[in-house]
Amino acid sequence: MQTDNLLKQVSFIKEIDKLKYIQRKTKLFNSDRCENDAEHSWHLAMMTIVLAEHSDKPIDVLKVLKMVLIHDIVEIDAGDVFLYDTTKSHTNTDEELIAAEQIFGLLPTEQAEEFIAIWKEFEDGITDEAKFAKSMDRFEPLLQNTSNNGGTWAEYNVPHQTVYDKKKVIKEGSSTIWNYAENLINESVEKGILKK
Amino acid sequence: MQTDNLLKQVSFIKEIDKLKYIQRKTKLFNSDRCENDAEHSWHLAMMTIVLAEHSDKPIDVLKVLKMVLIHDIVEIDAGDVFLYDTTKSHTNTDEELIAAEQIFGLLPTEQAEEFIAIWKEFEDGITDEAKFAKSMDRFEPLLQNTSNNGGTWAEYNVPHQTVYDKKKVIKEGSSTIWNYAENLINESVEKGILKK
Repeated sequence: MQTDNLLKQVSFIKEIDKLKYIQRKTKLFNSDRCENDAEHSWHLAMMTIVLAEHSDKPIDVLKVLKMVLIHDIVEIDAGDVFLYDTTKSHTNTDEELIAAEQIFGLLPTEQAEEFIAIWKEFEDGITDEAKFAKSMDRFEPLLQNTSNNGGTWAEYNVPHQTVYDKKKVIKEGSSTIWNYAENLINESVEKGILKK
Repeated sequence: MQTDNLLKQVSFIKEIDKLKYIQRKTKLFNSDRCENDAEHSWHLAMMTIVLAEHSDKPIDVLKVLKMVLIHDIVEIDAGDVFLYDTTKSHTNTDEELIAAEQIFGLLPTEQAEEFIAIWKEFEDGITDEAKFAKSMDRFEPLLQNTSNNGGTWAEYNVPHQTVYDKKKVIKEGSSTIWNYAENLINESVEKGILKK
């Protein structure tokens, strides 16, 4: 039984290596090199550990870590959807659900069910853990874009109000981080790297 | 105070972006593209979540996650040391300690001290958490090298006994994973991708 589980787990571990090839639109800090999903997930995990104290509600840090580590794995099959894409939905697409069942389905049944549940909880964004995880997911590219003269905002002509509306999700997880983020957005407008 | 902490934490979050540029010798699965330290750390975190049930001893999974997520951060300043490098020590070098104090020192004092302690605990490899974290760190490149026709073993002419001695560390964390790993090593010799 233990060996059976291990064989399934090893095939999952091999499959998810593909996350390293999924390119995001956002660039690394002070860089023109795109970030990939594995790097992004690692950075969110680090941010979770470092910033957990700023969560407005008590959170189970281990659960948030699981969320941010796995949240993009479905993109191995379903592809990355750019946050400011106006033609494609970002959450709970059928394509992503099929991908989740396919990839997490490589794991032993109980573990597959746990991972799918955690991924859905993140996508739904209702629990305190999901809210904090989503704050991290919105905060990282904000920091990256401000380090890159506007980054994807400038590259794709994203207006201030759209950025503001998307980033406001941060407030659901942490009012302290949102205060900081809101200032960054305002400064970006003043600097002319985000257009009002 | 909370804002003070956040400012320090953001500068740490920016600094550790550099981990994405630290190239390891080991290649991605079935690939000739080198893995970087951020990708590697994400993969170890995923392996920790997935394989924790195989630990011989009960472990605090959150602590192991912290270990694997931060274990290579010192390499931003100190550089990656190849596992089979015969000229350079791998643990607790002065260079790494200075790097740890420098990089983790960007964080608020209490957090900096916690991170340095966790990093040292990993390096010392004595606690059950450190043993399991080290198993993960040895297991991933074993899977990668076997997927790549011997990978770095072939590339750097590393003999079977050296690989065996380095990989035996896995046994300290999990006898189940070690059984699997030992079989993989033996199969690699039979296939001629690891020389006896």
